[in-house]
Amino acid sequence: MTTDFTWTRAQFQLPEGIVYLDGNSLGPLPKATPERVARVMQPEWQNLLIGGWTKAGWHMMPETQGDRIAAMIGAEPGHVVVGDTLSIKVYQALAAALALRPERRVILSDTGNFPSDLYMAEGLAETLGNGTRLVTVAPEDVAAHLTEEVAVLMLTEVDYRTGRRHDMAALTRKAHEVGALTLWDLAHSFGALPVDLAAAGVDFAAGCTYKYINAGPGAPAFIYVAPRHAGAAGTALQGWQGHEAPFAFDLGYRPASRVARMRVGTPPVLQLAALEAALDIWEQVDIADVRARSIALSERFIAGVEARCPQLRLASPRAPEHRGSQVSFHFSEGYAAMQALIARGVIGDFRAPDIMRFGICPLYVGEPEIDRAIDTIADVMAGCLWDRPEYKVKAMVT
Amino acid sequence: MTTDFTWTRAQFQLPEGIVYLDGNSLGPLPKATPERVARVMQPEWQNLLIGGWTKAGWHMMPETQGDRIAAMIGAEPGHVVVGDTLSIKVYQALAAALALRPERRVILSDTGNFPSDLYMAEGLAETLGNGTRLVTVAPEDVAAHLTEEVAVLMLTEVDYRTGRRHDMAALTRKAHEVGALTLWDLAHSFGALPVDLAAAGVDFAAGCTYKYINAGPGAPAFIYVAPRHAGAAGTALQGWQGHEAPFAFDLGYRPASRVARMRVGTPPVLQLAALEAALDIWEQVDIADVRARSIALSERFIAGVEARCPQLRLASPRAPEHRGSQVSFHFSEGYAAMQALIARGVIGDFRAPDIMRFGICPLYVGEPEIDRAIDTIADVMAGCLWDRPEYKVKAMVT
Repeated sequence: MTTDFTWTRAQFQLPEGIVYLDGNSLGPLPKATPERVARVMQPEWQNLLIGGWTKAGWHMMPETQGDRIAAMIGAEPGHVVVGDTLSIKVYQALAAALALRPERRVILSDTGNFPSDLYMAEGLAETLGNGTRLVTVAPEDVAAHLTEEVAVLMLTEVDYRTGRRHDMAALTRKAHEVGALTLWDLAHSFGALPVDLAAAGVDFAAGCTYKYINAGPGAPAFIYVAPRHAGAAGTALQGWQGHEAPFAFDLGYRPASRVARMRVGTPPVLQLAALEAALDIWEQVDIADVRARSIALSERFIAGVEARCPQLRLASPRAPEHRGSQVSFHFSEGYAAMQALIARGVIGDFRAPDIMRFGICPLYVGEPEIDRAIDTIADVMAGCLWDRPEYKVKAMVT
Repeated sequence: MTTDFTWTRAQFQLPEGIVYLDGNSLGPLPKATPERVARVMQPEWQNLLIGGWTKAGWHMMPETQGDRIAAMIGAEPGHVVVGDTLSIKVYQALAAALALRPERRVILSDTGNFPSDLYMAEGLAETLGNGTRLVTVAPEDVAAHLTEEVAVLMLTEVDYRTGRRHDMAALTRKAHEVGALTLWDLAHSFGALPVDLAAAGVDFAAGCTYKYINAGPGAPAFIYVAPRHAGAAGTALQGWQGHEAPFAFDLGYRPASRVARMRVGTPPVLQLAALEAALDIWEQVDIADVRARSIALSERFIAGVEARCPQLRLASPRAPEHRGSQVSFHFSEGYAAMQALIARGVIGDFRAPDIMRFGICPLYVGEPEIDRAIDTIADVMAGCLWDRPEYKVKAMVT
């Protein structure tokens, strides 16, 4: 397949005059989504009422869409299920992994991980109360800290601030050499670059669908459990939807034999419909093409900004193979500078303490947008526009 | 306020020719919901993109809607937050309650609780690994099992099968007498009958919004933490959205001072919009009126069915004050009989082993629907229509 990026671009409802470089935080609206979501309400919910769970297939959406995601990340079919939020899925995967290494007490992670993953791990360690502890090291020190004390190596492949990318296959191999299991957070990988979980030998993975996948605000997460752990993985959050026979209403829990055991409660059907519409676009996309184009656009962006904005210092790795699909720069007045850019229609975001972050999403960003972004950044920097008081008022940014 | 049930009825998009007595499982579509949900997508998501989180108020929806729910269940303002699923919220509340009684090891519940609550408790007890155990007794034996070993009394106020109602205030008082805390599941209470958490002295509560509240398939849940526990309650699932400063991206977790600490991950904005539209109807409703009308309709239903269908045996308590807002009957061929009813446009549901369940939702069910349901049940029973083979094929029922 050769991806037609003119076609992909046409699938999105982008506002006029905007260069959107924040799809790594929330992807834009696919044109097909409103109608797909509306269909869940009318006629499905309206006419089928409770019958929608079976007759409209609502109940199976976490699994049918899990299978579609599996095919996109090199996972074995039937080993991915959708639901809840990324934090919840990280918790379940981590609990399952720890239980498979009962004699070990260390969760190894790094300071580049998304904070919520670290918080969830701390919370789980506290609940376990058995001496399990989270050890957080610098990203470059992870390999050196892989010892036989480590039960689980828990990492996010691509750093949410800098775009720095871990070598998933190599670190997974090293973890296995010391008998540790791996849990990979794919938040900034899924839809950004090729992921091959089975080839990398990953044990557990989780990801979200509201960033590069474009499934909308609050879109559900997913979890992967390697086939070799599928029958033994505990689920920690033992909800009825993960029961082998949820509608038997047994008083005792029996996990489903399939990855469906990682389901918890009633699935969010409106959000799942939006995910379905978003995944339809990806059926026409080859992620290798996306990666190649992301690199080309990112190189163009870095070269342009560096040539014209000496105040900005590249925060992302220079070598494209060590980056995800975002480019970040350090700038001490980054918050205000980003506000100035947004006011001029170039939308990226800011991450403390000083990072200006730009997501490069080739499905709807091309050379004209990159060039306009470069021009606008250059204008803001050359004119010290970030120094205007209206841009310095801090609001909550996501 | 006197509730205008002609007006409430007009707020729903009910299919023609259907008597819907399954709103205790999934409420019907409010007419305003499709437009409200569509608005999240267009113009909000389309035009605001990432800015929707602040400019459209998405980020605060779990709290603003939590406040609306608080006002409906006698909770103090600022002590309810919306999100995730009921199972997840039960887990968080139970973990918080157990941590407040560290010297005790028993979670007391009953066989009338919804199985998922029991499963979640088992999972939590296993994760704690400190000897915490779930003790499940018959509903009528709960009070007798309240000893000083009990850390938490975890009950669903209204039994999902029979509609049998616990005395929340009395059991909470008894629990407190032995030093135990209480966690009440309001799944079949919220929107069905008056709930006054503060007056009853409840410690923790959780509920869902897709049943009597009509917020749609997979609508989010909510959690209540009594003010006296708010500052001490651990959250177990320590997601970034529950952090005191989620957008500071600190490496360490600090729970929000407010009930917002019970938030976990990114909130499901499409589902929250549907909840918002559903709650709008409740602003015009006095739950005392709903209760009075639910009792009148239920009494009419029971009398009619019992007079004409000697095969059916009432499974719900006979005294209205001991029931929620549903009426259930035992019948050995209940599954097939319910299929026969559904085929004739009277929609209730079946719960194993032999319960035919009918939800009485006065917002859109009145005397004509009750009478037609009685007639149809009488026809099915008199003609032994449940004996036809096409009704005996078991499908998944929700």
